[in-house]
Amino acid sequence: MKVAVVGVGNNTSALVQGLALYRDSGSLVGIRRPVIDGLGVGDIDIVAAFATSAEKIGRDLTEAIFLPPNNFPRLDCDLPSAGVPVTKGLVDASEVPRVAAALAGAEVLLYSAPSGRPETARAYAEAAHTAGVAFINTTADPVARDPRLLDRFAAAGLPLIGDDLASQFGTSVLHNALLRLLAERGLTLVSSYQVNLGGTEDFRNLVENPNTKAQSKLNALSAADKVQVAPLGYLSQLKSQKVAHLNLEAQGWGGTAVSVDVKLTVHDPSGAAGVNIDLIRLAASALRTGQGGYRAEAASLLKSPPGTAI
Amino acid sequence: MKVAVVGVGNNTSALVQGLALYRDSGSLVGIRRPVIDGLGVGDIDIVAAFATSAEKIGRDLTEAIFLPPNNFPRLDCDLPSAGVPVTKGLVDASEVPRVAAALAGAEVLLYSAPSGRPETARAYAEAAHTAGVAFINTTADPVARDPRLLDRFAAAGLPLIGDDLASQFGTSVLHNALLRLLAERGLTLVSSYQVNLGGTEDFRNLVENPNTKAQSKLNALSAADKVQVAPLGYLSQLKSQKVAHLNLEAQGWGGTAVSVDVKLTVHDPSGAAGVNIDLIRLAASALRTGQGGYRAEAASLLKSPPGTAI
Amino acid sequence: MKVAVVGVGNNTSALVQGLALYRDSGSLVGIRRPVIDGLGVGDIDIVAAFATSAEKIGRDLTEAIFLPPNNFPRLDCDLPSAGVPVTKGLVDASEVPRVAAALAGAEVLLYSAPSGRPETARAYAEAAHTAGVAFINTTADPVARDPRLLDRFAAAGLPLIGDDLASQFGTSVLHNALLRLLAERGLTLVSSYQVNLGGTEDFRNLVENPNTKAQSKLNALSAADKVQVAPLGYLSQLKSQKVAHLNLEAQGWGGTAVSVDVKLTVHDPSGAAGVNIDLIRLAASALRTGQGGYRAEAASLLKSPPGTAI
Amino acid sequence: MKVAVVGVGNNTSALVQGLALYRDSGSLVGIRRPVIDGLGVGDIDIVAAFATSAEKIGRDLTEAIFLPPNNFPRLDCDLPSAGVPVTKGLVDASEVPRVAAALAGAEVLLYSAPSGRPETARAYAEAAHTAGVAFINTTADPVARDPRLLDRFAAAGLPLIGDDLASQFGTSVLHNALLRLLAERGLTLVSSYQVNLGGTEDFRNLVENPNTKAQSKLNALSAADKVQVAPLGYLSQLKSQKVAHLNLEAQGWGGTAVSVDVKLTVHDPSGAAGVNIDLIRLAASALRTGQGGYRAEAASLLKSPPGTAI
Repeated sequence: MKVAVVGVGNNTSALVQGLALYRDSGSLVGIRRPVIDGLGVGDIDIVAAFATSAEKIGRDLTEAIFLPPNNFPRLDCDLPSAGVPVTKGLVDASEVPRVAAALAGAEVLLYSAPSGRPETARAYAEAAHTAGVAFINTTADPVARDPRLLDRFAAAGLPLIGDDLASQFGTSVLHNALLRLLAERGLTLVSSYQVNLGGTEDFRNLVENPNTKAQSKLNALSAADKVQVAPLGYLSQLKSQKVAHLNLEAQGWGGTAVSVDVKLTVHDPSGAAGVNIDLIRLAASALRTGQGGYRAEAASLLKSPPGTAI
Repeated sequence: MKVAVVGVGNNTSALVQGLALYRDSGSLVGIRRPVIDGLGVGDIDIVAAFATSAEKIGRDLTEAIFLPPNNFPRLDCDLPSAGVPVTKGLVDASEVPRVAAALAGAEVLLYSAPSGRPETARAYAEAAHTAGVAFINTTADPVARDPRLLDRFAAAGLPLIGDDLASQFGTSVLHNALLRLLAERGLTLVSSYQVNLGGTEDFRNLVENPNTKAQSKLNALSAADKVQVAPLGYLSQLKSQKVAHLNLEAQGWGGTAVSVDVKLTVHDPSGAAGVNIDLIRLAASALRTGQGGYRAEAASLLKSPPGTAI
Repeated sequence: MKVAVVGVGNNTSALVQGLALYRDSGSLVGIRRPVIDGLGVGDIDIVAAFATSAEKIGRDLTEAIFLPPNNFPRLDCDLPSAGVPVTKGLVDASEVPRVAAALAGAEVLLYSAPSGRPETARAYAEAAHTAGVAFINTTADPVARDPRLLDRFAAAGLPLIGDDLASQFGTSVLHNALLRLLAERGLTLVSSYQVNLGGTEDFRNLVENPNTKAQSKLNALSAADKVQVAPLGYLSQLKSQKVAHLNLEAQGWGGTAVSVDVKLTVHDPSGAAGVNIDLIRLAASALRTGQGGYRAEAASLLKSPPGTAI
Repeated sequence: MKVAVVGVGNNTSALVQGLALYRDSGSLVGIRRPVIDGLGVGDIDIVAAFATSAEKIGRDLTEAIFLPPNNFPRLDCDLPSAGVPVTKGLVDASEVPRVAAALAGAEVLLYSAPSGRPETARAYAEAAHTAGVAFINTTADPVARDPRLLDRFAAAGLPLIGDDLASQFGTSVLHNALLRLLAERGLTLVSSYQVNLGGTEDFRNLVENPNTKAQSKLNALSAADKVQVAPLGYLSQLKSQKVAHLNLEAQGWGGTAVSVDVKLTVHDPSGAAGVNIDLIRLAASALRTGQGGYRAEAASLLKSPPGTAI
């Protein structure tokens, strides 16, 4: 599969390094689905990358992924030069034709920039449409949820998959599993909290623009009326790690107390890459078989698939 | 339902107090199934109780449950005298007729003595059979797993449900749920441990006779080759609480580390009572409708149902 | 000792209930210094209380302390009516004479209102000065740090003790002890964080006006350059409990990793009352022996004693 | 300093690798005292090593330290061949002369074998005495506590330092610090536990021969009557890491609950090497200045210095 990426942040660093590692080692550690529609983890070549940071533009992708503020660790694998210099990303819709031209040869465009710039996200989708390339939106910005856009991709036989990637293993996944387990065993939830701490640039952005993140986290949780989400904490020392502290207080037989306290430590960019590897294969396979539009199989990998509120 | 119990330890204390509390309050806190086959939580009367401790024999059941070494807490509810004096339990098979006579009027005999005395367990089962009473074995001693005995109960139209109660919410339930969640999300387990600390007499017995308990715990866990179970720790200060520390170390995308650390605090006797309340109703309902033998619906409440190794 | 209090919040609830409990029980549980200058814990009578909430004014102190938003738990002790109706507190300096008159018979005025209203704090100090009463400022507002005011109290033979109470056992105390222990054993600190969660009205105020609190927390910590303090989290479900999660990552011999993870759970108002009980006795004893002004012995109980920055 | 070691286990691995790392890097990470009596961390040469394992004998020390069951990690530093082949250790006293001869050129003999073989420990001490070499006993076997032996070393102007090394940072150090902190702040301890898990061969030996270890741990703790120590758990997956879970339940003002839960993760062999580096310098400096016998300055580094019970 020939893949182009928008955004050369931590998530792209995790993806690029992981692809090299898996190809070298033949390992399947941390891989949810070794093969999707006949496509393996190592069957991916990154053929283009777009970014807006002046320091990154023009550098080889394999160097650019280590520039600050990126802080995902260097994995223990050879990383030969990709031969892919980072291209200047688009700033407004007038640049769609330039980007579309740069997508020649790509099958999938993975949009992995920070959330919060819907116009930009859609401009890249337009470029993909123009170039005949499948589009994946990993951000919360509404792209695949836009029915008009989705129809146009479908009509053109081009896959459009999104929005908002659900981490392979994050706080919501874990918290929900515990809430469900308590309910299933007949315990009565009294109260529960989660607090998330992280050190990536993404995390800092979320802290500074908290608007709907806490609410979105609550929406993701069953039993939400008993669950409280503390403000995100940006702690630079954590680098690309996320640390979450969870507590669940419940009552069992006779009202006696049951307490569960959890500390979760995880690399956020790995959680993204571990899902992107599946989204890319779903998109590429659909493109090759001429299935345009959304692909329902992706639903469990997304927080806001088509049909959810914008 | 008219129920007799063998054993006046913490589990019986939790059951007796909980029944009073639920009847008084109408609450359903901590109840997994409010109604089973039309039978509610409050529809139970304890009509006989057997014990071997000289201090307990002759005392009203509602007093005997608070005698040492019992240390389950006093719940916040009125506990009027049961009018049920504790009866001397049987020591050998010659006493089966005496016990059978004492079961007159009971529908279900709940065997809730310590594990490790299979002859005693079977003698009580004989007494139940003689008296025409359903039998529930909550211990690890093989009773319902004995095909000959099971056949005899079935032939007599008497339910026989066991063996070895699975706690409503304990370490195995939680550890397994986490192991399964990691696997389902595609993480690769590196290592995992659990250590269990408790302060009940049951716990002390297990510590002193650890034989197969650690192995049985491992059997209960998926991914058992990566999981290690530390020796049980008897800490009297915990009283009827159990504390478990769990750790799971895994690898996600690119082999990056994922750690989950958990502390669980729970009252062991509540975990037993919360399951006994379901077993009793399953047994009583089966007796009333003439279904003898085992009842498959009980499988999820038992560690060693019929068909598992003895 | 005859004591008047300003503020009928959680801290006053903890103080009032605790005084009753200790007097009844003769217990010394949780008491740091049973006797100070011959004065015991039980030798205190609350003789006046000031508040601004319309619901509290006119109610007996022993009822008012349970009105929302107060959420400190009801301790297990008899609490006979104090015979002390809550008095309307002052809003501006014109009311100083009224308050001074209401202080007749008191020896100590404990200022235990929320931080952030320095004019009010000083007006109460004026009232105490007028009435010949010792003054304790438990808030961060500068009162004892005001040299002119301190001189006037000293000249009048009136104790003035403050500012800003240091909790008997809180996050800073614990975090500092751990940081010092690591240093003393020769470990090299790599990084450390703390996150504080709480459910009191005080906590909510701090979250909404975070200005200098995180910085002040950092100031309180040794090795501050390696320590990061996450934003406070207001979680109403915690009520008067505070929960703190601490982490310390260090290196030992050969640079190998040492990790310490801590969860602290504590009732904030108890931490205040446990210190107020000492401050009151220090103030009363000084008043009785004619020592005006500040009392150096209080330094370890305060965050901002005289001489620290305003 | 010219140092010989008995025992080529994890602790020696940590020492040997750490010496190379500190010499290379000039780092002082994890070092408690950079200089003792003018002696730096890098001023040490290992000149002889004794072991009993057939696999280790004859191998260069820098290879032997990585043979199983050793599982201390390989530190990130160059480790050039030491030019020191591992010598066959002594089995009985008849071999003292051979070992003494092999100590020619050494100033200090560090006895770092497993605890539990007092005859062997003393035979090595004899060899050191014969060879005019200072002796350090890091095991619990009584050597420096033997007054007759100590007198002979003193008379010969030879240092004898022991017994039983106290880890630089272990469970006892941390637990004690927390118990003392609670007491100092006036909290009343209700209960406290610790459970230790580890994966070294030393740990496995302790688990299999638990005799006095739990009691010795209790002796090391203040407030011991409220503290319970769970059985050690040998978990091979932890390798050279030790994990301890600590809990402290206390009461503050008004009897309200204060809870502290701690997880400590540390490499046991590093804790030993970080103390051995100080003991070696104390011994070498004393030898060079002709101070025979025990050295009081070592007391804080030892669990059982001369004068404590045997």
